[in-house]
Amino acid sequence: MDIFDRLKAAAAADWTSYVEHDFVRQMGDGSLPEAAFRTYLVQDYLFLIQFARAYALATYKSRTLADMRAAKAGLATILDVEMELHVRLCERWGLSAAQLEATPEHRATVAYTRFVLDCGVSGDLLDLHVALAPCVVGYAEIADRLARVLGPALANHPYRDWIGEYAGGPYQKVAHDARHHLDALASRAMTEARFSELAALFGQAARLEADFWQMGLEGAQARR
Amino acid sequence: MDIFDRLKAAAAADWTSYVEHDFVRQMGDGSLPEAAFRTYLVQDYLFLIQFARAYALATYKSRTLADMRAAKAGLATILDVEMELHVRLCERWGLSAAQLEATPEHRATVAYTRFVLDCGVSGDLLDLHVALAPCVVGYAEIADRLARVLGPALANHPYRDWIGEYAGGPYQKVAHDARHHLDALASRAMTEARFSELAALFGQAARLEADFWQMGLEGAQARR
Amino acid sequence: MDIFDRLKAAAAADWTSYVEHDFVRQMGDGSLPEAAFRTYLVQDYLFLIQFARAYALATYKSRTLADMRAAKAGLATILDVEMELHVRLCERWGLSAAQLEATPEHRATVAYTRFVLDCGVSGDLLDLHVALAPCVVGYAEIADRLARVLGPALANHPYRDWIGEYAGGPYQKVAHDARHHLDALASRAMTEARFSELAALFGQAARLEADFWQMGLEGAQARR
Amino acid sequence: MDIFDRLKAAAAADWTSYVEHDFVRQMGDGSLPEAAFRTYLVQDYLFLIQFARAYALATYKSRTLADMRAAKAGLATILDVEMELHVRLCERWGLSAAQLEATPEHRATVAYTRFVLDCGVSGDLLDLHVALAPCVVGYAEIADRLARVLGPALANHPYRDWIGEYAGGPYQKVAHDARHHLDALASRAMTEARFSELAALFGQAARLEADFWQMGLEGAQARR
Repeated sequence: MDIFDRLKAAAAADWTSYVEHDFVRQMGDGSLPEAAFRTYLVQDYLFLIQFARAYALATYKSRTLADMRAAKAGLATILDVEMELHVRLCERWGLSAAQLEATPEHRATVAYTRFVLDCGVSGDLLDLHVALAPCVVGYAEIADRLARVLGPALANHPYRDWIGEYAGGPYQKVAHDARHHLDALASRAMTEARFSELAALFGQAARLEADFWQMGLEGAQARR
Repeated sequence: MDIFDRLKAAAAADWTSYVEHDFVRQMGDGSLPEAAFRTYLVQDYLFLIQFARAYALATYKSRTLADMRAAKAGLATILDVEMELHVRLCERWGLSAAQLEATPEHRATVAYTRFVLDCGVSGDLLDLHVALAPCVVGYAEIADRLARVLGPALANHPYRDWIGEYAGGPYQKVAHDARHHLDALASRAMTEARFSELAALFGQAARLEADFWQMGLEGAQARR
Repeated sequence: MDIFDRLKAAAAADWTSYVEHDFVRQMGDGSLPEAAFRTYLVQDYLFLIQFARAYALATYKSRTLADMRAAKAGLATILDVEMELHVRLCERWGLSAAQLEATPEHRATVAYTRFVLDCGVSGDLLDLHVALAPCVVGYAEIADRLARVLGPALANHPYRDWIGEYAGGPYQKVAHDARHHLDALASRAMTEARFSELAALFGQAARLEADFWQMGLEGAQARR
Repeated sequence: MDIFDRLKAAAAADWTSYVEHDFVRQMGDGSLPEAAFRTYLVQDYLFLIQFARAYALATYKSRTLADMRAAKAGLATILDVEMELHVRLCERWGLSAAQLEATPEHRATVAYTRFVLDCGVSGDLLDLHVALAPCVVGYAEIADRLARVLGPALANHPYRDWIGEYAGGPYQKVAHDARHHLDALASRAMTEARFSELAALFGQAARLEADFWQMGLEGAQARR
């Protein structure tokens, strides 16, 4: 049982509220209104800007060149790869990158991103990566599960781009490496006395992710 | 027109959504359910812990002894005075300080507090104090207005403690000084090119304050 | 063997270079030129401003009210007590507090203080307190040793104010509590994998303290 | 007169002590002992690790994607380009990158790098870039001057690698862009009230750069 599995087990109800949220279920069966997905995706673009800041923070807080280079790679993945998926998908709706960047942040976006950044500034690298893990590793878990259930039906699924991106090999590797890195950080810096505090951070982060899905669903209702 | 008035004017709709929120209106006419006030007050205790951190951050970021001593005084006011009001009020409901501190933070609490802290870490002292101002100065404005409307009726009002505390001389002076300090910081470090960004921070902070009142109202509904 | 003794043992040569530095020896036997002491004391005033920032940082990084209040007490001790000793001593030489604050920081002052602050920002509270310990606990150890050797001769000793302040009960208690707090932090957050890194921080901090004494000696030579 | 020229003029004596330091003069006429250059270059490698952290900090503190991408490019230049020059030069002396990274930091390295990082954490992006400028822009100025004086003699000069790297087109462009970026930051965020404080930061940074050269000269003496 690695540290990620321990954290999930310690925050089981919060974790389930996130990975089995109605938004995810509806995305999986294709019933998710496009307006919900669109609300989510635009905010997720703003979310990624803050997540890029979190990786820059990890670079700044690193004490070895190896850690710096690893964090810089995470920063580049977000700025150069992941955000491109969002820009590409949003262009279909006629939204430019500049329009995305100018959209006001929803409170759910503010809450999760600033919580993660604050964990990272006030704590150490382990705190920061524990707060990032529900997003980084959770997305890989969610997309992989949806892709397995869908099988070949994914090819014609309305959310095939999103599911395919996060279920695909490159992102699964990113998540696998992030999980491994988290375990290495925990081996180095986690005492049992810290575990309950880390589990509380992890649970709070998972709840804030669930709120982020909820924002998508409510965004769709608001437009009806 | 000092900087605070300029910021209010630039974010007028957000400001109104905060200072004239239903929670405020119901507190004023005494119709606010106790459950709503209680939900609010418990979260506000957690809020103040993070606000104390913001004043510690201001102390750390100060470049003169005078600024350090002023920020340290703000820190002491929160930890030694304002939190005592909350503990005293909560004791009536049988809630101890330890129970208050152990309550999970609501997302609205997380969103506003971590937003303020992030403004402060990523920006300068002016950014930090602009993000703090809706709370520090806004509470004085709200309570003063309620107290004036109530007049002598305040003495038997269900929320006389809260209104009295923030409308009272000592807190009005704290808010007055904070406003003056904000103006001094702006004189020193604000260019017109920064104003629109500061107004955006201020507006976001006011919206997050409105969400905080909303959390109180919804907390009451949830318990019915 | 508490964590402080373990750190001293792991950085023994650096520790000795600091606590048995010529500056300390000359202060003890009274042969230290006043110009050296004066150079030191003026820079130590600037040093304390930065150390106050370090305690403000510790307050900001705290995750419990108890930790916040403890760090705030440390901040108050520096700003309200320790700096007063310096102002009082410097007034004898006709130096006002304003003149002290306006003196340019020597490189040795910059090096130690910014190193400590960076340990604290980039690491966790344990890193910060390990970097502070050579100063906080080391001064108590140095002054206590000098006072014991001097015995009643301290009463007429040229450096009786400094030695008396740091060897006196109140400061000895501050140092004792700081050492106890460091041990508690280590019990909570120190793995053996971290120890060598913490010992490196501690050794670097002790070397930078030795450089600080050296600056005093060289300041005296420069004036001859 | 752009902001960089204004800062140089305001801190003229400090600037001259840096760009016309004996180390620079001896490097120019080829009389600099190799031991001095080696002492310098090894510490400069450690310096660059901290400077990479400063660019990561700038990325974290950015509020627009454009600023984030610019800061990330600066980070990549240091980690992927500039440090390679050092590794390549140090390999000639049989020093591996791992040995470089394991060398203890000299106090002069600690002083300058942590000063810059602290300016950046406690202030805003303008403070950070003002503190970085003596290094980023100053090296281009120094190397360009040496290269012009040497002319074709550079081809056989003992320090042709260093001079050629920093006098060459790619680095001159980096410095030119950095200077332009500093001016843009100043246009946006500099009031005249801030100028004297910024000039003080700039002067302190130039003095700490001069100390860094001095460390090289003293390193050579120590080995004789």
